[in-house]
Amino acid sequence: MAKNLTTREEDYSKWYNELVVKADLAENSGVRGCMVIKPYGYAIWEKMQAELDRMFKETGHQNAYFPLFIPKSYFSKEASHVDGFAKECAVVTHYRLKTDESGKGIIVDPDAKLEEELIVRPTSETIIWDTYRKWVQSYRDLPILVNQWANVVRWEMRTRLFLRTAEFLWQEGHTAHATEKEAIAEAEQMLRVYAEFVENYMAIPVIKGLKTESERFAGALETYCIEALMQDGKALQAGTSHFLGQNFAKAFDVKFTDKKGKMDYVWATSWGVSTRLMGALVMTHSDDNGLVLPPNLAPDQVVIVPIYRNDEQFEAVSEVAESIMKKLRASGLRVKFDNRDTHKPGWKFNEYELKGVPVRIAIGPKDVEKGTVEIARRDTLEKDFVKTEDVVDKIVALMDEIQQNLYKKASDFRSNNTTTVDSYDAFKEVLDTKGGFILAHWDGTAATEERIKNETKATIRCIPLDDDTESGSCMVTGKPSARRVLFARAY
Amino acid sequence: MAKNLTTREEDYSKWYNELVVKADLAENSGVRGCMVIKPYGYAIWEKMQAELDRMFKETGHQNAYFPLFIPKSYFSKEASHVDGFAKECAVVTHYRLKTDESGKGIIVDPDAKLEEELIVRPTSETIIWDTYRKWVQSYRDLPILVNQWANVVRWEMRTRLFLRTAEFLWQEGHTAHATEKEAIAEAEQMLRVYAEFVENYMAIPVIKGLKTESERFAGALETYCIEALMQDGKALQAGTSHFLGQNFAKAFDVKFTDKKGKMDYVWATSWGVSTRLMGALVMTHSDDNGLVLPPNLAPDQVVIVPIYRNDEQFEAVSEVAESIMKKLRASGLRVKFDNRDTHKPGWKFNEYELKGVPVRIAIGPKDVEKGTVEIARRDTLEKDFVKTEDVVDKIVALMDEIQQNLYKKASDFRSNNTTTVDSYDAFKEVLDTKGGFILAHWDGTAATEERIKNETKATIRCIPLDDDTESGSCMVTGKPSARRVLFARAY
Repeated sequence: MAKNLTTREEDYSKWYNELVVKADLAENSGVRGCMVIKPYGYAIWEKMQAELDRMFKETGHQNAYFPLFIPKSYFSKEASHVDGFAKECAVVTHYRLKTDESGKGIIVDPDAKLEEELIVRPTSETIIWDTYRKWVQSYRDLPILVNQWANVVRWEMRTRLFLRTAEFLWQEGHTAHATEKEAIAEAEQMLRVYAEFVENYMAIPVIKGLKTESERFAGALETYCIEALMQDGKALQAGTSHFLGQNFAKAFDVKFTDKKGKMDYVWATSWGVSTRLMGALVMTHSDDNGLVLPPNLAPDQVVIVPIYRNDEQFEAVSEVAESIMKKLRASGLRVKFDNRDTHKPGWKFNEYELKGVPVRIAIGPKDVEKGTVEIARRDTLEKDFVKTEDVVDKIVALMDEIQQNLYKKASDFRSNNTTTVDSYDAFKEVLDTKGGFILAHWDGTAATEERIKNETKATIRCIPLDDDTESGSCMVTGKPSARRVLFARAY
Repeated sequence: MAKNLTTREEDYSKWYNELVVKADLAENSGVRGCMVIKPYGYAIWEKMQAELDRMFKETGHQNAYFPLFIPKSYFSKEASHVDGFAKECAVVTHYRLKTDESGKGIIVDPDAKLEEELIVRPTSETIIWDTYRKWVQSYRDLPILVNQWANVVRWEMRTRLFLRTAEFLWQEGHTAHATEKEAIAEAEQMLRVYAEFVENYMAIPVIKGLKTESERFAGALETYCIEALMQDGKALQAGTSHFLGQNFAKAFDVKFTDKKGKMDYVWATSWGVSTRLMGALVMTHSDDNGLVLPPNLAPDQVVIVPIYRNDEQFEAVSEVAESIMKKLRASGLRVKFDNRDTHKPGWKFNEYELKGVPVRIAIGPKDVEKGTVEIARRDTLEKDFVKTEDVVDKIVALMDEIQQNLYKKASDFRSNNTTTVDSYDAFKEVLDTKGGFILAHWDGTAATEERIKNETKATIRCIPLDDDTESGSCMVTGKPSARRVLFARAY
């Protein structure tokens, strides 16, 4: 290996940072906290977008686009929203630059000050609900099922590629409904869509749950979330779906007339996932040799590397390679034949291992003679010789096998790193030795939650939505608890 | 018609503004100059994006993402670029809001002033070339063929939906090459891609040409463009592709070692089309009844409207409708069966005419009896009864026919509104009476170009790339001219 990648055991955080850059996923830019998503990283994000977009449309949603800027006053209209979002944000105050007369280059033109400052959207509830007021009069105008793919900005002081950046890409769904019941059903439906996507495409098992009041989205009555566990034992929130009640409808005066002619405020949801999922993908499956990508999201699912010493060998090998490529493509797979003569096979093996291509095929002159090819799996690093006539069936089957193996591996890891504890001492010990998810009883108060957070840096990731009904007593206060909740230190 | 749409003859500009809003394409937002692209408008834009994205990928390009913000100093690095872009733009000066202690609500925190102001990107050459410096060392790293789908902001004082908005959506390609020849070939290739897209998908004929020096992109050595003619006789620039020479490589110090070990600056292109194309689409084909969409870009290509008086009739009609819908979908068409019982057929007819759906099928109880359906074409407004068993073949054929008819109609309009003139008087008369494209001789100087612009508001749209070699003398100065150039008043 000439990758010089820090191992996970040496320094998990450093391993992650290096891998994201070396595998050509993203890098820091000249603008503080803003990343450049490189073509290979963006190709994975595009696959994610395509699947999510399909799932949104299958559940009746349409895309639209709302302004990047939000007038400052909009944030003040929903009381709890302003506390959560109108703080660390990018503020546009002027609309013109000019050449400085005293020769200082270009400067901000003091005469071009905006009457009201504009905030670069950290999330779009306010500007969207200001728009929905014009769209909704009657129950016939409902539901509105809209999604937006967009960039948003939250001024973060400490940033990390994909996990926490000042600007990031995401989708934000914003729906409007005639009844509370319908809005709650929508928020729950989108949580299921997210869970299905993350589990089936990203091969990451998640726990569905509800956030506690203190961890809720600013302006929401209920925040649903999916929580995943990373290889270092820390949790990562992979998606959220909010039931917003009538808060935004009241703030922006969005009313409708129901079938009986009665006026009421509209019920709302919002839900989003972001490029943060790229971080989750890297941290869940990758190893000390580089990225490991699930076949469902890999830009190249199969790469074919020719091995040869002269033109004659190259031609013989290429003929077999191209025939295999053609058949694999006809089976719907994304295949690359790397026939560049500027790089040696060993270099290419390294490169595709680093970039996590699920299956590598190597073909040399001896393989052509014997009618075999060498297949290497990225997930297990196993190699195998396969008859050329069997290679297509074998690889088509491998795609499923690898996808499922990655999910199983992540799932086993999570099982092995989920601990049930009954005392606060045991809780602290597990946190400091093993990490991972901890299921424990909690008295349901914000005070106890806060104390645990301050003393251990662990937070309640969610109140799981499973049907566990085991009651008990709070590990800290001994007060009664209806069920165990999920704790972890988190990204 | 209950659409209350201003006619084109009454007021073309008002007709356009009303149509964009009434057909649910877009509307103004609460933020000055920023539009909301509504779901129906966005669905058309998504179709455009999908085709363009496919064409970019087929020509070897990959997508990536670069920061929204650009440090102010970056603009100063390329001398002519700064004059063109670092003027009317959104400037971020602060990164925090706070609650005012004297009760004025939330205010900008004066302690959170940025050391260097950030500009919301009006175009991304500077931030991208600052990044390419890190990506390029050797000829092996070239070419870089990257495209970005993004929002950009140019602070426009007078805005119009799609045609000129402060924020708009676009794609910007940014490529880096080892040779001048290769970069020019790339700029020309992308012009052809744009022309092919606009002609084959949008059904709008375009003239390919070169901009004069004064109309060039700020920082380009050559700007290629495609120009289209709108129904009011004004031109609209539909796309541009720039050969940037080594200007940005020099400004951002992007060098590479060639095969012989010699260092040189990298050669560049950039190219873009934007949501402005939506305006061109509306203004080229639509009529006094509403939108007219080419089948290749229509979100719904066919709509089926049932006509009935009771449940029994509805069931009989629905059975036929659903069978037709199924077959049309199996033929790859986008079909909607509008079986809502909240709206009458007449209302629906109006709605789909306004929204430009290419083909409408109406089915009533008598049609079921007779084994026929009524087909209405949006482009010609012709209606026809067709046997149910022939309807699928007929409509599949109609898709091509309508697409081609729209192109032909626009092409005929352009021919009828392109005038060749030899004197400045004739030029002014044509401009004031007929408008349209005018082919005239020009002496090639910026002074004459400027004079014509000031006196007539007409600009040189382009020096066409066709093989016209007729020389002559400038209509204004009488000086020699190698060929006629294309003039028009423009959007």
